Amino acid sequence: MADPEAGIGFRKGHGTENDFVLLPDPDGALELTESRVRALCDRHRGLGADGVLRVVRGAAAGRPDTEWFMDYRNADGSVAEMCGNGVRVFARYLVEAGLVTGEELVVGTRGGPKPVWLRPDGEITVAMGEVRTGPASWASLGGRRFEGLAVDVGNPHLACVTGVAVDGLDLRDAPEFDPGVFPHGVNVELVNVLDADTVRMRVYERGVGETRSCGTGTVAATAAALLAAGRDAGELEVRLPGGRVRVALSADRTATLTGPAVLVAAGELDPDWWRAH
Amino acid sequence: MADPEAGIGFRKGHGTENDFVLLPDPDGALELTESRVRALCDRHRGLGADGVLRVVRGAAAGRPDTEWFMDYRNADGSVAEMCGNGVRVFARYLVEAGLVTGEELVVGTRGGPKPVWLRPDGEITVAMGEVRTGPASWASLGGRRFEGLAVDVGNPHLACVTGVAVDGLDLRDAPEFDPGVFPHGVNVELVNVLDADTVRMRVYERGVGETRSCGTGTVAATAAALLAAGRDAGELEVRLPGGRVRVALSADRTATLTGPAVLVAAGELDPDWWRAH
Repeated sequence: MADPEAGIGFRKGHGTENDFVLLPDPDGALELTESRVRALCDRHRGLGADGVLRVVRGAAAGRPDTEWFMDYRNADGSVAEMCGNGVRVFARYLVEAGLVTGEELVVGTRGGPKPVWLRPDGEITVAMGEVRTGPASWASLGGRRFEGLAVDVGNPHLACVTGVAVDGLDLRDAPEFDPGVFPHGVNVELVNVLDADTVRMRVYERGVGETRSCGTGTVAATAAALLAAGRDAGELEVRLPGGRVRVALSADRTATLTGPAVLVAAGELDPDWWRAH
Repeated sequence: MADPEAGIGFRKGHGTENDFVLLPDPDGALELTESRVRALCDRHRGLGADGVLRVVRGAAAGRPDTEWFMDYRNADGSVAEMCGNGVRVFARYLVEAGLVTGEELVVGTRGGPKPVWLRPDGEITVAMGEVRTGPASWASLGGRRFEGLAVDVGNPHLACVTGVAVDGLDLRDAPEFDPGVFPHGVNVELVNVLDADTVRMRVYERGVGETRSCGTGTVAATAAALLAAGRDAGELEVRLPGGRVRVALSADRTATLTGPAVLVAAGELDPDWWRAH
């Protein structure tokens, strides 16, 4: 009988520097505990990543509606519904491993099936689903108070379009916000409008800190920036510390996210290391 | 003719959470540019590490006095002489890859050949060379001023034995220090004496920030703690955020460092990724 813990294969990849360890596990045989996810994502004693993407056949994951299911785990070991940058890297892996063909696929996630398109220029587009704008609210961070718009992209955001240049701010400390509006915490985007088609953005993710990129955050930022310009649909380029993506918001309040996805390396985990965690 | 940039192998490992990408390159054929070192060490767009350890035969590195030469690069791409945690991980790799036999070996470094002993308990001891204590000086960090001792372990340290509990301090900002004593900057250790045989330590490494561990820093901390106790030789356990090591200081002012070394994974870099950097 094969030892399921010997020579566990992995890939490392990123989308606009939101980075992931992928664990190909088509039959769902891997015992992926919280402790192992935390160890894998630990940037000093493990491989290091923002999250783990386990690659499981839909049938093996109890999700027979899609061929491949993205079992996404946060770096703290918890499960998560969706990750816009992660889906692109997941799709890139499926293509490079020869597990899917064609220019269109559907990735199963806990947030539902997500259609994905592989573009001729190498970038990847993901259907991000519905975008719901909420009330105006505020956040204090970087020593300032910002006014913003609550936006729900499956997770809660406060997108603050501001004239304060976001580049120079110190975003090391967690923001204060209105817990009445955001009882489960909030991801805060600070957004500078550069021109009618382009914004610059930094993001503080709840429970994490400032990150190089946040897929749902770029959608929230686009919704807020378009609304501030009196537009209820359109496409913006969003410039992040980790790169550039494009977000298109339709009049039906659904969004797509287009950006790069890079595979860095492939390998195997040391069996002793895996067993120790 | 073989493509030297196809399928470049790597290992990832750490010693007390000071982590490294190892590049086995026995014949010194790899074109390891600063840009590639920075990309490899980048924790989001690369593999992520505190540094790169290229594994080259001494003869191929122009150092025929030792069989294996540790070509150490800092995460910023610059070369460095020595790394006490890195030597242990380097030695672990040589043993696991079957490239050395026996319980004793010598690793060539830019700081000279370093004798290494593999211990029965799996830990590894490295001869760290000479330790020179200098004048008293001071540093300000974490909102406080600390008095300490200048210690040269091939690189400059200020080891501050203090009664202020080091665990609660905010060490995000770079320290202030006396540039007359440390014209090339300084690594600052904050040291709590726990008992006659044990200290706790945190370290701010120049040009890097707080790290989980620093091999030469543990030697400096030990020298300062022993001196504060009126001892000019002895062995201490040093507890770091990243783990525990033991440092022995001899009456001849040389030190050894003993600690763990862990290999996490092995793999190959994506050829497209390598070429792009």
